[in-house]
Formats: sequence, C-alpha cells, structure tokens
Amino acid sequence: MPADTFDVLPLLRPDLPPPAIRWNGSPEFNLVGGHNDADSVPVDGLIEAATRALKREGRTLSMYGLHSGPLGYRPLREFIARKLERDAGIRCTPDEVLITSGSLQGLDLVNGVFLSPGDTVIVEDMNYAGTLSRLKRCGADIVGIPLDQDGMRMDALEAALADLARRGVRPKFIYTIPTVQNPTATVMSMERRARLLELAQHHGVPIFEDECYADLTWDGVRPQALRGMAGDDRVVHIGSFSKTIAPALRVGYLVASWPLMSRILALKTDGGTGALEQMVLAEYCSTHFDTHVRALRKTLRHKVDILMDALRHSFGASATFEDPAGGIFLWVRVPKQVDTSKLAQVALQAGVAINPGAEWMTDAEVGRRWLRVCFAHPEEAVLRNGVARLAEVCRREFDVPAAAGGVHR
Amino acid sequence: MPADTFDVLPLLRPDLPPPAIRWNGSPEFNLVGGHNDADSVPVDGLIEAATRALKREGRTLSMYGLHSGPLGYRPLREFIARKLERDAGIRCTPDEVLITSGSLQGLDLVNGVFLSPGDTVIVEDMNYAGTLSRLKRCGADIVGIPLDQDGMRMDALEAALADLARRGVRPKFIYTIPTVQNPTATVMSMERRARLLELAQHHGVPIFEDECYADLTWDGVRPQALRGMAGDDRVVHIGSFSKTIAPALRVGYLVASWPLMSRILALKTDGGTGALEQMVLAEYCSTHFDTHVRALRKTLRHKVDILMDALRHSFGASATFEDPAGGIFLWVRVPKQVDTSKLAQVALQAGVAINPGAEWMTDAEVGRRWLRVCFAHPEEAVLRNGVARLAEVCRREFDVPAAAGGVHR
Repeated sequence: MPADTFDVLPLLRPDLPPPAIRWNGSPEFNLVGGHNDADSVPVDGLIEAATRALKREGRTLSMYGLHSGPLGYRPLREFIARKLERDAGIRCTPDEVLITSGSLQGLDLVNGVFLSPGDTVIVEDMNYAGTLSRLKRCGADIVGIPLDQDGMRMDALEAALADLARRGVRPKFIYTIPTVQNPTATVMSMERRARLLELAQHHGVPIFEDECYADLTWDGVRPQALRGMAGDDRVVHIGSFSKTIAPALRVGYLVASWPLMSRILALKTDGGTGALEQMVLAEYCSTHFDTHVRALRKTLRHKVDILMDALRHSFGASATFEDPAGGIFLWVRVPKQVDTSKLAQVALQAGVAINPGAEWMTDAEVGRRWLRVCFAHPEEAVLRNGVARLAEVCRREFDVPAAAGGVHR
Repeated sequence: MPADTFDVLPLLRPDLPPPAIRWNGSPEFNLVGGHNDADSVPVDGLIEAATRALKREGRTLSMYGLHSGPLGYRPLREFIARKLERDAGIRCTPDEVLITSGSLQGLDLVNGVFLSPGDTVIVEDMNYAGTLSRLKRCGADIVGIPLDQDGMRMDALEAALADLARRGVRPKFIYTIPTVQNPTATVMSMERRARLLELAQHHGVPIFEDECYADLTWDGVRPQALRGMAGDDRVVHIGSFSKTIAPALRVGYLVASWPLMSRILALKTDGGTGALEQMVLAEYCSTHFDTHVRALRKTLRHKVDILMDALRHSFGASATFEDPAGGIFLWVRVPKQVDTSKLAQVALQAGVAINPGAEWMTDAEVGRRWLRVCFAHPEEAVLRNGVARLAEVCRREFDVPAAAGGVHR
C-alpha cells in the first residue's frame, strides 16, 4: 500500500469497454452521427412552447414525474398514442406508452428485460452500430439476416429460425428497423412484414421494432408498424423525437402492454426522463409536428440529392449506393481494395469523419467494403467538399479511381 | 407452440426485479420522495433562461452533445466547476465535470465502473434507499457503518476496514453522503472527514462522495468536500440540481479526472443528457443560483419546523428525531411496538405515504423502528394533517400513545 496516494484504476471492474477518447471538437467535414439540419430546429416554436408550458405548469417541476407518474408526461404520451394510431396503425392507450430518454434508453430497457449472457437474438445483418455494441455488451449471440431493397429477407430469416430450432435455440427476439432501416435506408414491404409476423409467431419469438426514422420517408407515408399488425406484446415498439425535432432533446418512447411494461418500468430507475423536454415537446408537437416534419423531409431530400451528386462527381463508379427511402444517412459501397475501417482513420486525419461499415454489420469483415455517410447536419458546401476530400484520400490510400469509369486511374 | 399467439413473459430474463406497481396518482398526504416546494420553482426565471438560451443557440440542438461534446453543455460544466471551488473547496476543470441525467445516473456510472458481483462496498448503515437497492442489484456485499450526529463513526469504520483486511477483502469504495446525509440529515465533521481520508488511504479504498443535498444546509455553509481535501480520484464526487432547482429536471454531475472519467464516459451510452435542461440550468444558475437557494433554504427550514411541531403535537414522546442540519427529510424513530414497514402499508390505505426505515438501512430489521418523512413538497396543512392522520393510524394499529408521555394511552 503506497504512502501518499494509491491508484484507483486497478480497482475498476476488469471487463469494462475501452476508455472514451477525448473529444476535440467536430472535424471539418463531419459526416457521422445522427445530427440533424441546424436551420430546421424550430427554435421559435420551442421558445413559445417552453414559455406556455412553463407558465401553465412549471410548478409541477417540483415533483419527480410531474403529475403524470413514472411513465412520463401524460400530454406527451397522449400525443404519441394519437400519432401512432394515425401514422403507424398502432392502437395503444397513453398508459401503454413509456417516455424514454431517447430511443437509446428504449434499447437498453428492452435488452435489459429479455437478455441474459448467451441468449440469441436475430437482427438485420447491416445494422445500427449502437444496437450491435449494446447486444455484444449484453453477451448476446447475434444472428445476422441479410437485407435487400424490401428489407430483411424472409427466406434467410426462415432458414435461420429453422436452423436455430434444430439446435434447440429459441431466440429472445428479432430486432428490426423496418421503416428507413439503419444503415440501408430501405423500407420493409407489407408482404415481408406479414411474413415476419408469421415466422415469429410460428417460432414463438417476439419482435423488437425500432422505428426511430419512420417519420422521415420522403413521401411522408409509412407502412403500418409491426406492433400495429400484431396488436400485442409479440411486438415491442420504440420510437424517438431525435430525428424529427432535435437529437439533443433526449426523448423517445416505447410501446408495450402493462404485463410487459411493468417489468420494463421496474428497470427504469432514473427518476424519470427530463421533464422540461417532455413538456416542450408535447406543447410544440400537438400543433406543429406535421408542418415541421413535412418541411424537414424536403430539406433532407435536398441534402441527400447533393450528397449523391457529390459522390457521383467525385467517386464515379467507385461508390455505389441506392437512392434511400428517407432518413439522414446514405449507405455506400466502395471497391474491393478499400478497407473502410482504415479509410475512416486516414480520412479523419484529413478532416473527414465517416462511419466505417465494420461497426454497422454483424460480419465486420464484409463491412469493410461499406461506409455510412450522414447528410442531415452538414451544410451543402461541407457535403460537397467533404466528399471530394474523401475521394482524394481514397485515391491516395487505396488507388481508387477518382471519377466515373476509372478515367483517372 | 400455440396457434394464435404466445406469451412473451416466459422469455424475460429470470432475475428481474419485481414488476412496477401501477401509479394511481399521489396519495392525499404525500410525505415521501425527493419532491420539492412547488412555489419555489423559479418559473419566471426558467422561462427567461429558456428563451435566452434557445434564441442564442437553439440551433445547436441539432447536434448530439450540442457543440460541447459528450461531457455535457460546457457553460453548465463551467458553472459547476466555479461553484464547486467556491462552495466545496473542489478544484477541477470543466473537463473534469460530467453532466449526468440526475445524480442517479452518477450512482449507476460509478457502480458500473467499479462493481462486479461479489465485490464489497462500505456505506453508512442508514442510507438512501436508491443506493442500497442499486448496490444489491450489482450483487455487492454491503457493509454498513453506524452514524451519529457527526456523521459516519470512524471507530466503526476503522474496525470494519481492519476486519475486512484480515479476511483479505479490499472494498471497492466507501460510499458516503457527508453533507446532509440521507436519511439522517447529519453533516460529517471536518475531523471525521480528515480521518476518513486517512483510513481510506491506509487501506487503498476509494471514496464515493454523494453531495446532492449539500447546498441545503440551513446556514448555507458546507464543509469542504472530501474530493476537495483529497484532490484526486481517490474521491469520486457527484452532485445534483434536483434538490436546489427542481427534481423533474434530470440534471446532476460527476467529478473525476480523465483517467477515471474516460472509463466512466465509456459507460454513458445515452446520447447525452437532455440538452434543453442543461442550457436552461446554465443560463439560470449563472446569475440566479445563490439568491434562489438562499430563499429555498428559508422555505425548507420553515417547513421542517412545521413538521417537527406537528410530530411533537401528534406523537409527543412517541416520535423522536434530531433537528436536521438541512435538506428535505426528517428521520424519525418510533416506539418498539411499531413496525414501520407495516405502518407504511396501513398508512397508505389511510392516504398517508411515508418511507419505511427498512428500505433505508443496511439492517432492515433495525430499520423497522424508523421512518423518513419528506417535508419539502407538502403544503403546511398537508404536513400537519398528514402527521395527525399518521399518529391516528399508529395509535390504532400499534397502540402508540397519541401525545407526550403517553397521556392518551
């Protein structure tokens, strides 16, 4: 035992994730993260909403849970229930809606009630990095199912479920992002949704449906949610205001019936989700949500057009992608000689941040051919110049042709 | 496998806590919970702060972490660093402050980096129920140290540490609420603080210091924090705005140096703490914190006087307590024949909610002689009538004398 001091670090638990890296500000060309368009934040509307809500019931901030109890601010739950019925075909009462601190907390809570180490879960093989990292931390065995333009492939799911059944494994759930899938930005067809429910039913496996991007299809139409089609807790549904209003407001929600909700709620020991944000969102959204999101979709569509144009211009045939169905990111495939994990590091030194595909796929090796580019936050010039800079790095590091057809090779 | 549906519940992990109980509104006499005085919520100040902050930088809500990175909104961290130096003798930079979603998240993060199942922790034997339940869920062996009016008893701590050392056990940390301890509302003396640091040093055990009530001593003076005396990560410090501004704003903070902070931050995978609440707090507190808290302390002192008066009036010698050093709760001892766990149930049926002591002590059996009464939220009449109602229940159920000296027995 040392005389003057001792080191605390050896006392930490041995299985911690790697330490965080110091944040040094945003890179010059920030093409990562779920950030959104800055000009689209409805600042005046939020000020008005905050003023009105606080004047009316600011005193209730003196109570944990306001006057609404642990599920969250009741007017916000009422708005969500109405909206989910209208837009997603989900029938639920406000008491079947839990306000969460972002949909990330929804992920943690659902993982928390279902998963013990060694449990099996099924996911789309291209997937949200935050889901994959969480499932790994839970010690889950992750089975990845390939996607195509209509979402998760049901032939592959059927085969995987049959294979697991043969081995006596009953997965805890099938996690899916059916509408504007992350990172592929595809929308699962209605036929596949029906088939997914059949397969899940047949194998007795619940579905965990994450629809945090579902309001952002370009035409504003979203297919009925799986939760709506099933009508009960065979589908647990989560969503968020991060992508439609602002990500720094940490407000999401979860839909479940009381028998399951009561188990989930017992894990939500956080003293409630931030009440001011809930009040402001309820106040703002009840009158402005639709108008706001309609305009936001247009802005995002414009930005993805710029991004796709920039990619075609700077990469030519060396970057392939599908026109996304909505959302805030583009999933891009690059030639074989590029390792996007290495590219991400080198590009960052050149001021360009991208998401390397290895973190976004269940098979990290395959992911090295892919990268995710987020287009909602960067201004037009940042998108264009960031892509140009990225193409330069690709050419320099991996000998990738600079424009269409390899003209510059 | 059933034909039409299947039950999801058998798929849940087997070791979940009991399901949550449905919330049915607040009881008539709500004498539990960390709620605060409703009239003291600075509603106008918060509206002004929200307006100013949103006007100036509302657009930054489009980014996770605003422009401040994962530690939280920088102006709030700057305010906290200044305040901690002035009021608690803690020298830290804003980059050694992490904004958390209430101090509850601080508890989760510190437990999370230190504790594996089977680890030993030392705590004050009368303690915050939320800390005890968390430690139990982490699978910790909890060693309780008795307190007196000067806080944790150092003779008992010394003996416990020596005993553990003999058995080859090095505790992961000593958790303490030194200033306005929960539930005893005592303040640890400076002599004890110095001795605590010595003992911790000698045994190589870090201290986990929870000062979420420390701004609420009646005279506004708080002794130097243990973190300030130690100057490094041998003491991890957490605090909160829940008790000084409003509990429903879920904003707390944690102080640690980078080597430890980088490990803690890696566990904070929530996409940041609610940004609007951080912005509003930073804006409001930088100019109004001191004035506000000075007035709040007076209000709370007035309310505890009413509570103590009501207890003397209705219970006489049957309820004993010490005049608290500050805070929002009173820790009350009742005669032997009363079981406060049973009392809490019966009283709730009569409309009075109290905290039974069994949940607030490491030795639950001893706790059955104690109860915690929260006085910040209830109005004067609710305090008086709630205590009268509680006394009635006590008399009826446990044959407790109704007033001083057992006159009514």
